Amino acid sequence: MKIGRSTADSILRKIAARFKSVADNKTAARSLILGVGDDAALLQPRARHLTILTCDWFLEGTHFLRDKHPPDSVGWKALARALSDVAAMGGVPRCFLLSLALPSSCTGHWLDRFLLGLRRASREFRCPLAGGDTTRRNEILINVMVVGEIRRGRALLRSGARPGDFLFVSGRLGEAEWGLRLLRRGKGPVPPRNALTGKHLYPRPHLELGQWLENTRLATAMMDISDGLSSDLPRLCAASSVGARVEVARIPAVQFPAPHPPAGADALRLALHGGDDYELLFTIPPHRKSLVPDSFRGVPLTPIGIITSKKRIVLVGENGRERSLLPGGWDPFRMRS
Amino acid sequence: MKIGRSTADSILRKIAARFKSVADNKTAARSLILGVGDDAALLQPRARHLTILTCDWFLEGTHFLRDKHPPDSVGWKALARALSDVAAMGGVPRCFLLSLALPSSCTGHWLDRFLLGLRRASREFRCPLAGGDTTRRNEILINVMVVGEIRRGRALLRSGARPGDFLFVSGRLGEAEWGLRLLRRGKGPVPPRNALTGKHLYPRPHLELGQWLENTRLATAMMDISDGLSSDLPRLCAASSVGARVEVARIPAVQFPAPHPPAGADALRLALHGGDDYELLFTIPPHRKSLVPDSFRGVPLTPIGIITSKKRIVLVGENGRERSLLPGGWDPFRMRS
Repeated sequence: MKIGRSTADSILRKIAARFKSVADNKTAARSLILGVGDDAALLQPRARHLTILTCDWFLEGTHFLRDKHPPDSVGWKALARALSDVAAMGGVPRCFLLSLALPSSCTGHWLDRFLLGLRRASREFRCPLAGGDTTRRNEILINVMVVGEIRRGRALLRSGARPGDFLFVSGRLGEAEWGLRLLRRGKGPVPPRNALTGKHLYPRPHLELGQWLENTRLATAMMDISDGLSSDLPRLCAASSVGARVEVARIPAVQFPAPHPPAGADALRLALHGGDDYELLFTIPPHRKSLVPDSFRGVPLTPIGIITSKKRIVLVGENGRERSLLPGGWDPFRMRS
Repeated sequence: MKIGRSTADSILRKIAARFKSVADNKTAARSLILGVGDDAALLQPRARHLTILTCDWFLEGTHFLRDKHPPDSVGWKALARALSDVAAMGGVPRCFLLSLALPSSCTGHWLDRFLLGLRRASREFRCPLAGGDTTRRNEILINVMVVGEIRRGRALLRSGARPGDFLFVSGRLGEAEWGLRLLRRGKGPVPPRNALTGKHLYPRPHLELGQWLENTRLATAMMDISDGLSSDLPRLCAASSVGARVEVARIPAVQFPAPHPPAGADALRLALHGGDDYELLFTIPPHRKSLVPDSFRGVPLTPIGIITSKKRIVLVGENGRERSLLPGGWDPFRMRS
């Protein structure tokens, strides 16, 4: 009888009920005219703003493991990573759509826990649920579509970097990848919580930092690092028709306890190629560099290099030796050895 | 080396290149500020309009079969069915996001043909591609998110039906389901084209009809029939807190050649429970019924019953006998015998 009760409509009702309190709050209610339950959702756009649109896959086996990732982290992260794209434009989230495909065995406890994490992210980042689609499937498939807004002419694009700009990064790179490794090594579904597994399981999109950079007009270009610096920096450079010189010594990497780092730990490799950090990568013209603080609300902001007119990405070692930085980050279509 | 060339970025570039001509046309360029290639897309919303948001799964094995459905039909239908939700509000499409997960073996010919069908629908219904996400997966997974617009206060919701309103349906019900049966029976991937397999493979969202009903303010409620009348009518009635009486003799069903309909053909069952028709179901107050034409641009518009205050859905047979209409349409979570 379990399947009989769990029709697509009743699952939609369950989801809608869990999110009612988020949609009912005043800020959300002003803009979200119609939520879950009709053919589509209706949103009141703000005057003099553009609508930001982004969507992200979050698939069992590809992006998370059912036996390793707690369901509430799956819910949190599915929304957080899509919100990171809004942060990377300097925008403000407005609402999201959830497309969810589930095995019948996951429509009870798993779904409840998943919705808890999703709702926590929805509240924390003020992004109510506006609608979605559910279906049955052997594996858990998630797609989250986030709608945001940004003042007209103020979006921070990938294409704005100019030669001479300083290249900044927020936070520390490689932490989420190391967190994933700890998680995979651990026995059982829930690992001991620490800062690194926490960053992998419950990443925080840097919405406030993005909005601060939009507000101050300090940055010329911005994107988020989701696939690793070595994959994402070339995208920013290609969009801006520039290159970059990155100094290895300046890259904020995972800090392992000295003098004995854990076996297999290579902080530089993690920082260059580790995915899932959702840190912001942005460029600042030379005359404004001094206006960027060392940290923003506890998140370090570090200049790691400079934008060049030569369309090549060069990594400068601590010994001054140069080498090209080749993409080694997350790419689902690249064959891995 | 095939996989090596087909990285996620090159697939995104391929998709973006195919859609450039659609995004470049004047109407689209006015509103779509930034398309594929940045962290997110930017859309200029129209003044005095609300934004319509909807998303739809389209999954191999669940919604289509790789060996039966031509790739161009998969592309066409993935967009067409999401557009049907915009039609059902009376809205105008603005752009769409494509989330695509593909096996490496499908990144060549299959993807080319898929994009052909998708682009044909994108052009036909003036809905350019704004962005998306791609990843690798053993099965083909598609999620399409459509953004539309509607004048403030003019959206046709499910909740507006009132007792005494006439219940109308566009087109003929059950045709797409019958088309699917023909397709499954046929040998080889591409069946002989006829009107019924055509309706299943290349459904046309009734955007113009929806906009006409919005423009004339004739309808009180509207939705599209995607899961079958017996599943969708209860949703409209529940949203409006009403019931309905439907006359069997009036339901526009598949017309089989007399006097020998094909074996297994039950036009009424198909009309009540067949999915994928994407016809519009709408309600018209009694004093405006005469203003609804018999057909709109070749699509018949048929009154099939009346809205009642009693919250029950009653089917009135040709002999005058009444019975309750129970949901028998498409529901992925309902166990089938």
